Amino acid sequence: KRVLNCMCGAFSDKWLDVSRRCGKNAEPLQVPWGKHIDPQQLDAALATGAFDAVTLIHNETSTGVMNPLEELCAVARRYPEVVLIVDTVSSFSAVPIPMDELGIDVLLTGSQKALALPPGFSLFSVSEKAFVRAMQQADRGYYFDFLEFKKNQDIDMTPTTPSIAHINALQSKLDDIFGEGLTNRYERHRRTNARVHDWVRRRGFEFFADESYRSVTLTCVKNNRGIDVADLMKRLRVKHHLVIDGGYGKIKGETFRLSNMGDETEQTVSHLLACLDDCLPPS
Amino acid sequence: KRVLNCMCGAFSDKWLDVSRRCGKNAEPLQVPWGKHIDPQQLDAALATGAFDAVTLIHNETSTGVMNPLEELCAVARRYPEVVLIVDTVSSFSAVPIPMDELGIDVLLTGSQKALALPPGFSLFSVSEKAFVRAMQQADRGYYFDFLEFKKNQDIDMTPTTPSIAHINALQSKLDDIFGEGLTNRYERHRRTNARVHDWVRRRGFEFFADESYRSVTLTCVKNNRGIDVADLMKRLRVKHHLVIDGGYGKIKGETFRLSNMGDETEQTVSHLLACLDDCLPPS
Repeated sequence: KRVLNCMCGAFSDKWLDVSRRCGKNAEPLQVPWGKHIDPQQLDAALATGAFDAVTLIHNETSTGVMNPLEELCAVARRYPEVVLIVDTVSSFSAVPIPMDELGIDVLLTGSQKALALPPGFSLFSVSEKAFVRAMQQADRGYYFDFLEFKKNQDIDMTPTTPSIAHINALQSKLDDIFGEGLTNRYERHRRTNARVHDWVRRRGFEFFADESYRSVTLTCVKNNRGIDVADLMKRLRVKHHLVIDGGYGKIKGETFRLSNMGDETEQTVSHLLACLDDCLPPS
Repeated sequence: KRVLNCMCGAFSDKWLDVSRRCGKNAEPLQVPWGKHIDPQQLDAALATGAFDAVTLIHNETSTGVMNPLEELCAVARRYPEVVLIVDTVSSFSAVPIPMDELGIDVLLTGSQKALALPPGFSLFSVSEKAFVRAMQQADRGYYFDFLEFKKNQDIDMTPTTPSIAHINALQSKLDDIFGEGLTNRYERHRRTNARVHDWVRRRGFEFFADESYRSVTLTCVKNNRGIDVADLMKRLRVKHHLVIDGGYGKIKGETFRLSNMGDETEQTVSHLLACLDDCLPPS
């Protein structure tokens, strides 16, 4: 059958290309950038019976959209033949993601976004259903073969020589995370995010993402004031040694992005916002 | 067409499985462990016209065999439709490997063997012929897609977020390598290797690999004295805080392995050999 790629921004859009280059028969479920993946649209697509796998990016950082994971997973659960693959690179550990309860079959994350570790390491978790599907799959490759990982995990081995430094860093980060407490960590993201949102409104900016679908870890600010984003970035960097992103892909300059994920605290976020104020042209 | 996997030990044997799991029509050119890949056998296989790709491990560390790269490449060059893929993980920078001159199409190496960097990073170089072949290849995947790497390299970008620490470490290591000088580096490996070989002979051990095909970076010692290899390893670790390998895969215990690759010097190798003497049972 086919894989359905839910696409709502630069990173989720990429999955269609990736799927096809891996030889999959893939179709897009495309919404305009800034919009979220609509559970009803997903339902309609899956009801055709044409698909047995779905890819979804939980938090699309190019647009600042956090997709409604619970509703989308509830839809997917109604189609038992469908394997649900969710990328949580920029949401993992910032909001609760009860994988088993939601029925996520492959949960992917990276080191360098919500986990605030150096890049170069990926983490994933695979459901029993996805293991069974992998067994039925020919030509599934070697490097990311779930069954190869499982076989080695059963004997307490890594499938290939791993990046030891990243594993140590992850262990240290997990200690930090459980030291802070998951609930506290989720709350911290809510609070720092609210602080960014408050700043956006007070400075007369708008949000690129619709209300109710705004990411809790990254805010994509619409440049409705028509400021020179490149100049703002430069001033911020030169004067305050801070780096923000001036918009990704086709919305570069029309947006800019403020992250509050990972290790960001109320103090660091407030500092960033104060420095932004210092560099912003008068409204 | 098919891919021919030249197999002479644990690591080269693995390529057949990897090739097949990637959906390739693959055949082994298998020789017994401890033997080298024979250029005449390679010639005979390629003369059938059944193959358009060959995988070869230059230095097979499970058996201490260094394959005759020049002769094997000379054979492959006579078959222009064949793409030659060579793994140099444990020989790169230890011996000269003039990729273009030899006609190697894909040269692979890793960070943690001959380069003596932490694991978690791979390096590869691709010939024009291999780029053209990649273009003709459907379902070639995304993660290791040569064309994706090339496209990004052309605009001075990485294809994915890379492990920055490994890149910095590589830069530092390259400074070291060119500081030492390539010729000096090659010579150092020859000298430290000769020291190991000398020790093997003097202590009444034999070599697992045939003369003329012994690796310059790693010596696989045949346990013809029937010593307790596990006990030797333990004594060495406890008393001298040194770790050697007690044989890989099916020749565990029947062999043990001494590396002189990467950063090993005459001093470190001599120290290891002296400590081995201290822990060896009397002959």
